[in-house]
Amino acid sequence: MSRVFNFSAGPAALPLPVLERAAAEMVEYGTAGMSVMEMSHRGKAYQEIFVRTKQAVIDLLGVPGDYEVLFLQGGATAQFAMVPMNLLGEGGKADYVNTGVWSRKAIAEARKFGTVNVAASSESTGFNRIPGQTELELDADAAYCHITTNNTIFGTEYPYTPDTGDVPLVADASSNILSRPMDVARYGLIYAGAQKNLGPSGVTLVVIRKDLVGRARGAVPTIFDYQIHADADSMYNTPPTYAIYILGLVCDWLREQGGVAGIEEVNIRKARKLYDCVDASDFYTCPTEPASRSRMNVPFALATPDLDATFLAETSAAGLVALKGHRLVGGMRASIYNAMPEAGVDALVAFLQEFERRQG
Amino acid sequence: MSRVFNFSAGPAALPLPVLERAAAEMVEYGTAGMSVMEMSHRGKAYQEIFVRTKQAVIDLLGVPGDYEVLFLQGGATAQFAMVPMNLLGEGGKADYVNTGVWSRKAIAEARKFGTVNVAASSESTGFNRIPGQTELELDADAAYCHITTNNTIFGTEYPYTPDTGDVPLVADASSNILSRPMDVARYGLIYAGAQKNLGPSGVTLVVIRKDLVGRARGAVPTIFDYQIHADADSMYNTPPTYAIYILGLVCDWLREQGGVAGIEEVNIRKARKLYDCVDASDFYTCPTEPASRSRMNVPFALATPDLDATFLAETSAAGLVALKGHRLVGGMRASIYNAMPEAGVDALVAFLQEFERRQG
Repeated sequence: MSRVFNFSAGPAALPLPVLERAAAEMVEYGTAGMSVMEMSHRGKAYQEIFVRTKQAVIDLLGVPGDYEVLFLQGGATAQFAMVPMNLLGEGGKADYVNTGVWSRKAIAEARKFGTVNVAASSESTGFNRIPGQTELELDADAAYCHITTNNTIFGTEYPYTPDTGDVPLVADASSNILSRPMDVARYGLIYAGAQKNLGPSGVTLVVIRKDLVGRARGAVPTIFDYQIHADADSMYNTPPTYAIYILGLVCDWLREQGGVAGIEEVNIRKARKLYDCVDASDFYTCPTEPASRSRMNVPFALATPDLDATFLAETSAAGLVALKGHRLVGGMRASIYNAMPEAGVDALVAFLQEFERRQG
Repeated sequence: MSRVFNFSAGPAALPLPVLERAAAEMVEYGTAGMSVMEMSHRGKAYQEIFVRTKQAVIDLLGVPGDYEVLFLQGGATAQFAMVPMNLLGEGGKADYVNTGVWSRKAIAEARKFGTVNVAASSESTGFNRIPGQTELELDADAAYCHITTNNTIFGTEYPYTPDTGDVPLVADASSNILSRPMDVARYGLIYAGAQKNLGPSGVTLVVIRKDLVGRARGAVPTIFDYQIHADADSMYNTPPTYAIYILGLVCDWLREQGGVAGIEEVNIRKARKLYDCVDASDFYTCPTEPASRSRMNVPFALATPDLDATFLAETSAAGLVALKGHRLVGGMRASIYNAMPEAGVDALVAFLQEFERRQG
């Protein structure tokens, strides 16, 4: 067996050069005489890796100086609680835009800790679109406004950055971070589980404006206090050292692709090829509104679900794997994050056209 | 440079065969056509790894059927909060035995959520011993009694399992789990950050008696509720998939060493060699009471701290690294977890004797 094209929604494909370098460095990293996995997080060798990785994130994402960059654990699910526990204050309220399953989970979690105003929702149309700026019913007294920048399950993505005035904008950017430019200064807090565009599961990137650090209320677990992690430069407790190292290798690779601007060009091209193929066909349909379509997750349905099993078996046999759609949407989903080579999309498009000719 | 003997307290040395296998499988795992890091946690290939790893932990640790085995994130620091948030109940109280820095952190965290009775403490003698059973002032109404089975900083380890009657015994076993037999049935909950004896940092093992699951009170973050993780077999959110895979490889290796009984023999021998060397010398001293000494972390001091820098430079040059003691204790510390080969201890003992001859 050789390597397949892996369209998994996450954990997802990683760049081959990253894996090859990780393999080569696994038993002995440089002159350290040990694996990165075996290094004390407080030792010099690991500190060099950590500092370089953090700087790479700052450079690639364009993080201004008045922000903290943290590497935490627990994925977006931990952030769903950490954000309100740190930013809501006692009896506070926040705006949330509901664009799918992950937004809903974030909302349900925040409601444990305060009042949530759903500023807009696309639930009534099956989450097939992103509400526009004029649809947002924002509360000027909200502690923050929370959005999900890309929705893996429904395949939608914000084509714009909401203007929330003086209310800090908080973004779950797990599934499109570093896939397109992001004006960090327009956000109060950005968080992202790594397992789509950044690296392996087990590490969460948090970028938070410094004035929002230190607002945790009363009985917040120490590990859920941004201040604790900011003060200790993510070393309050043992961080997920190996996952951070891989994230650093992914950053190195991304730089070689021309950084975010470079990869965005490829991502635009990959998404366009796939959507164009689906749109040009009478056999495949895409449920999302064109203006809200995600470049990262492309859901599509066959003319009849009776063919789903055949399609999945044949794509798998052809080395195009993990195309089954989420059970809430059905059909197929191709996740084409940064690390999915354009050749993978080309191969999928060719398969789609050939399958339609045979089955359509 | 070749591989060194790494005496780091954690993240710590891993067995070489584990690293070699991880390197060989990094780019393509079996016939999956992808790295373990790239696998969806819900896919068949990863599920096989997960099920096998969980079973290996059950077998090696001897986990009875009425316990849940969970793989979580956040290390012991997250458990310091999760334990009281799940087990204390509103206005509840718990017993804690204070045997060092990590106990103290667990106590401080629990005090955020309820009342802590310090059932015993060895603080007055510089944490150089483990309080005995008769010293424990236990509260029969406590929700649980918490101990730290091994204390990495001060180099002490419980030589016995406390009898807490009907009060569930909760153990932070991060630094000696699977290094010696543990009668799991005597515990209500055992937790362990992986980065000493189990694998890489970023995954936390939790073994919890089923009747203790589902007791989380009101506003507990979803990710801090044992019930949520038990119901979802650790897949409520994306687990740290790669760290769990490595933990599985460590379990495979441990089985090849004769399991816990087999590695315990080696651990007893390794610790004895090192303590015997220190005790036989007038140059080195060990601060801990013999009956409380840890098999995992051996602190020792040179005759004068003036020689510390020379000692550290020479050991490092000899491929014996990370021997600097914790700043609270000073001197040296050799952490000799399961993965430290006996040859590493032999080399250290030989160096100690030779250094004493030259400098003593």
